[in-house]
Amino acid sequence: MAETTRFLLPESAIPTRWYNIVADLPMPPPAVLHPGTKQPVGPADLAPLFPMEIIKQEVATERFIDIPDEVLDVYRLWRPTPLHRARRFEEALGLPADVRIFYKYEGVSPAGSHKPNTAVPQAYYAKQEGVKRLATETGAGQWGSALALASSLFGLELKVYMVKISFAQKPYRRAMMETWGAQCVASPSNETAAGRAILERDPDSNGSLGIAISEAVEDAATRDDTKYALGSVLNHVLMHQTVIGQEAVEQMQMADAFPDVVVGCVGGGSNFAGLAFPFIQEKLAGKTMRVVAAEPAACPTLTRGVYAYDFGDTAQLTPLVKMHTLGHGFVPAGIHAGGLRYHGAAPLVSLLKAEEVIEAAAVKQTAAFESAVLFARSEGILPAPEASHAIRVAMDEARAAQAAGEPRTILFGLSGHGHFDLAAYDAYLSGSLQDYEHPQTEIEAALAGLPSVAE
Amino acid sequence: MAETTRFLLPESAIPTRWYNIVADLPMPPPAVLHPGTKQPVGPADLAPLFPMEIIKQEVATERFIDIPDEVLDVYRLWRPTPLHRARRFEEALGLPADVRIFYKYEGVSPAGSHKPNTAVPQAYYAKQEGVKRLATETGAGQWGSALALASSLFGLELKVYMVKISFAQKPYRRAMMETWGAQCVASPSNETAAGRAILERDPDSNGSLGIAISEAVEDAATRDDTKYALGSVLNHVLMHQTVIGQEAVEQMQMADAFPDVVVGCVGGGSNFAGLAFPFIQEKLAGKTMRVVAAEPAACPTLTRGVYAYDFGDTAQLTPLVKMHTLGHGFVPAGIHAGGLRYHGAAPLVSLLKAEEVIEAAAVKQTAAFESAVLFARSEGILPAPEASHAIRVAMDEARAAQAAGEPRTILFGLSGHGHFDLAAYDAYLSGSLQDYEHPQTEIEAALAGLPSVAE
Repeated sequence: MAETTRFLLPESAIPTRWYNIVADLPMPPPAVLHPGTKQPVGPADLAPLFPMEIIKQEVATERFIDIPDEVLDVYRLWRPTPLHRARRFEEALGLPADVRIFYKYEGVSPAGSHKPNTAVPQAYYAKQEGVKRLATETGAGQWGSALALASSLFGLELKVYMVKISFAQKPYRRAMMETWGAQCVASPSNETAAGRAILERDPDSNGSLGIAISEAVEDAATRDDTKYALGSVLNHVLMHQTVIGQEAVEQMQMADAFPDVVVGCVGGGSNFAGLAFPFIQEKLAGKTMRVVAAEPAACPTLTRGVYAYDFGDTAQLTPLVKMHTLGHGFVPAGIHAGGLRYHGAAPLVSLLKAEEVIEAAAVKQTAAFESAVLFARSEGILPAPEASHAIRVAMDEARAAQAAGEPRTILFGLSGHGHFDLAAYDAYLSGSLQDYEHPQTEIEAALAGLPSVAE
Repeated sequence: MAETTRFLLPESAIPTRWYNIVADLPMPPPAVLHPGTKQPVGPADLAPLFPMEIIKQEVATERFIDIPDEVLDVYRLWRPTPLHRARRFEEALGLPADVRIFYKYEGVSPAGSHKPNTAVPQAYYAKQEGVKRLATETGAGQWGSALALASSLFGLELKVYMVKISFAQKPYRRAMMETWGAQCVASPSNETAAGRAILERDPDSNGSLGIAISEAVEDAATRDDTKYALGSVLNHVLMHQTVIGQEAVEQMQMADAFPDVVVGCVGGGSNFAGLAFPFIQEKLAGKTMRVVAAEPAACPTLTRGVYAYDFGDTAQLTPLVKMHTLGHGFVPAGIHAGGLRYHGAAPLVSLLKAEEVIEAAAVKQTAAFESAVLFARSEGILPAPEASHAIRVAMDEARAAQAAGEPRTILFGLSGHGHFDLAAYDAYLSGSLQDYEHPQTEIEAALAGLPSVAE
């Protein structure tokens, strides 16, 4: 019988603590600033939007935070997730025996991605603090689906502002959220001042994640029974995702291997951070390894953006965070990896990039789909377009090692399946998928709109 | 911490043998007859269609057949599958502590259903015997997807004849098959004599599973490089699926429980058989338990059909098998559980029904979706419409036990997820889903077309 290729942990191995990388950083992360005063925000500023426990976690400095039993009970529906040796993919690539590829697969969650890892605790803490209703935004629908699932399990109402173009293109994602009991509306909507302002200027607006965030934040800020929940970018979100990497560290030990390179795709950065941070903990402690963030060439936040204070949304309602950004007014090209179309990157990921702890690589979408199809035909799993960016970088790393005659162990994050993205596969297979790179002048124009902050 | 609700087996617990219920039946199954001569068919009659190892398995009488290592290597990509205690669903139903519901979940396979359990060995044996290409039919797309996956892993070409109405309604299923490298065509097609004959009579034909089977069988019978593969009904297909039930027997032991009732949905019958046969082995050996086949009220093969010899397809190309049937000319109403829309049921399942070893229950689709939504909102997993019929029967069993004040342990098969069926959920949630029951006169008219066979 062939060697083991799927490394499974018992239920008892689900991490019981989240890992907070802030405790191990060489310097404290830059302060979050109030959008009006540009002074550091305090818990009181965030209280209208978030449950108090979430605010505490956002600024926490201890290395580990215990996961509540009620959250573990839900994690147990699909965690621990498998880690695979990509034996068949390696064979399809014709790699030598000492160039190995592993992947950690988060598509086994009921929502089909890593997003429930943070949706569940966010819904739990809201419920604990007496919140009746959550508001959020979603682009391609992964986050909205995950929060709909979590809200359903904890008996919360949920309102999802879904980017209008996705609302129209992905009716099944909407139906999935509604099946879990959420209410879903196309953004920009008539239900918020931010939405109405956009519609007045442009009644045919396709919407954007930045606009949808503005609507959800306004909804939560103006209703006493409602809090806001965000699916990426913020410290607590990234921390919740570290269950991925903690499991992966243990599973790589089962495989008697340690990665020379860890690769994750980056939109806001939570999937990347979830897998990579527990490995970066070892790197910061002296282990030799590389960590690569894979982003779309059509939304090149880490490779072509600047590290500066910016708003998280279009309407400039959110606090200012220091991050790699293309400018809050930047509108990324309409690529199929909708989950990666965000103008900024998580402050913690951005800081690690600025400090050169991690690297970044930009991937064109046709190259991502090419590797996704090769992966599907060899490993069986049909990857989400977002995760395909990580597959591409892993594949390029493997080929580079082969060309150099070097051994290399590569681990990448397969953040979700592509069951709701088959229109994109169809476009790729029929040859109608286009690549796009924003001209430098366009990026510079968007960056000119950055707020001025005295540092 | 709460009790365990998800029972996971280690990779080493994947069954290494398929269970062949024929060895334990009180009588041998009725012979399969040649459609022309109406005499029992021999291996030579089936050789143009199936690999020889498959033909051997179809008529095998030994209790266990070893699973090849190469097949186990692929099973290992997702097996063993989890068995869950439906704790949250029980709570949502308000059940007492001694009425318990368990489910075995097959939706974790890359194709999202139980179908790869047989697609993989069928592709493997074909490859072993030098076959270059497979032909098959698919209705809703689960089987076509599973065989596309398996063909991709073993390097076989695949042609899928997909029922035209589904081809149009489910472009994403087609794209999934194409991503795995299969060629997919709407049936009836111009590529076979059977298809052309239908199109000549009715150019706008929506197709049916019976027609698509005729096309795929003709394709395989007329090409030297091609064999046919069927996703249900036949003995070997049911046997391949017994990995489900063998795992479930062990997992119920882990849960320190034995089911009083086992429930599975039945279209052709392979999912039902896969879960139930290893339990029926214990029932036939004297264990007290009930086994219930859940079928759609709109295609009531086991509850309103007759037990008689009939063709498997519309064009009367297949051998005659003795089964519960509504007549090969019966056209089931267009319900959303496409995988259950078949005029017959597997001969082995039919025999067990005729011998009263198993029971059958018919479920209306609105009742199925009602329980599916309740299940999704409590357990998180979004069920396939097919599996929702089993959920409904399990729920009704639980409520009956509660009403009678009796303890009851119920196990049902959750054969797949509903990620490709969200249009159906949308229809249900918006109130536009209709129930349909065929009038008795219609069923009698179809049954009048049964072939006459001297028994």
